[in-house]
Amino acid sequence: MTTRLFSFAGGNTGRWRVQSMNTLAGESLAVVEALELVEGDAGPLHDSRWVLRGITSNERYVTREEKDSLVAKQQGLGRSLSRCAALIPLRKSAGWWTLTQDERRQIFEDHSRHIAIGMKYLPAIARRLHHCRDLGPDEPFDFITWFEFTEADTAAFDEMLKVLHASPEWRYVNREVDIRLRLA
Amino acid sequence: MTTRLFSFAGGNTGRWRVQSMNTLAGESLAVVEALELVEGDAGPLHDSRWVLRGITSNERYVTREEKDSLVAKQQGLGRSLSRCAALIPLRKSAGWWTLTQDERRQIFEDHSRHIAIGMKYLPAIARRLHHCRDLGPDEPFDFITWFEFTEADTAAFDEMLKVLHASPEWRYVNREVDIRLRLA
Repeated sequence: MTTRLFSFAGGNTGRWRVQSMNTLAGESLAVVEALELVEGDAGPLHDSRWVLRGITSNERYVTREEKDSLVAKQQGLGRSLSRCAALIPLRKSAGWWTLTQDERRQIFEDHSRHIAIGMKYLPAIARRLHHCRDLGPDEPFDFITWFEFTEADTAAFDEMLKVLHASPEWRYVNREVDIRLRLA
Repeated sequence: MTTRLFSFAGGNTGRWRVQSMNTLAGESLAVVEALELVEGDAGPLHDSRWVLRGITSNERYVTREEKDSLVAKQQGLGRSLSRCAALIPLRKSAGWWTLTQDERRQIFEDHSRHIAIGMKYLPAIARRLHHCRDLGPDEPFDFITWFEFTEADTAAFDEMLKVLHASPEWRYVNREVDIRLRLA
């Protein structure tokens, strides 16, 4: 069985070179030159300035019909041509977390088309979502999403983020850092 | 801000005396005489035989209408007459976790009436649900529920569990231990 827990260690060394770090909301993260993606709990790595952790988990919003469409279109991480990546940790406000399931689903998909927007960019943009909020009471972020794509699909990725950022769901995002990477 | 993380330490000492431990599904837990409920991460406590951890989190299934009804009827933990408690850690099968949100909600409420059943026993049975599955990849349980009630309401509590155990949702439960306690 493969692990569900992943660590993202920012520092001077790592397989991924940091191209840019852009704080979109809330507190920034210390600037680093490289990132290493580690399976399991890395702990504080040699020379890392920060380590973010996230765990893959069950679907929170998608229906069976949506899931089947996603699975039919999506491709896995690690494609040889996908030499570009983005690491986007984000946190949502207390107001988001006190909403009930139906209220969150309504904002997430009925009003913001989060699933439909992501679907439009498949299979070009591969992604893995990690949850952080329930790892413990003091996590700095609620989610970490890892994206992989080709150099040529970078513009499409930027466009996807722009559409998501303009959606009602993003009114609840109070910390977000967009870290762009390239395979070393 | 109060913590969302709680530890349940079973051992020789603690504010709650164990009356019975009944393994309903899967592997049992070592028999202990007492239980201490600790805010935060207790770590391995002095003389504890096991420590279970869980974190309170956002609602996974209830709608706004259901939530408002629950809040109107429920009472908090720590009522002076509630000298009886139950600690019920449980785990659900891999089959449950690969279901999509709509499929789980359908089993949870449409077919099993989990929310409606709990509502029927309010305010007598006070409860707090803790999530464990996303604390890490190796947690022994997915959920820990802590219940408090009076001696006189014990029969009602037993009845509630009986109804829940007969529901379709419980076909997905593959580990469950029912620990009954009384204030020392």
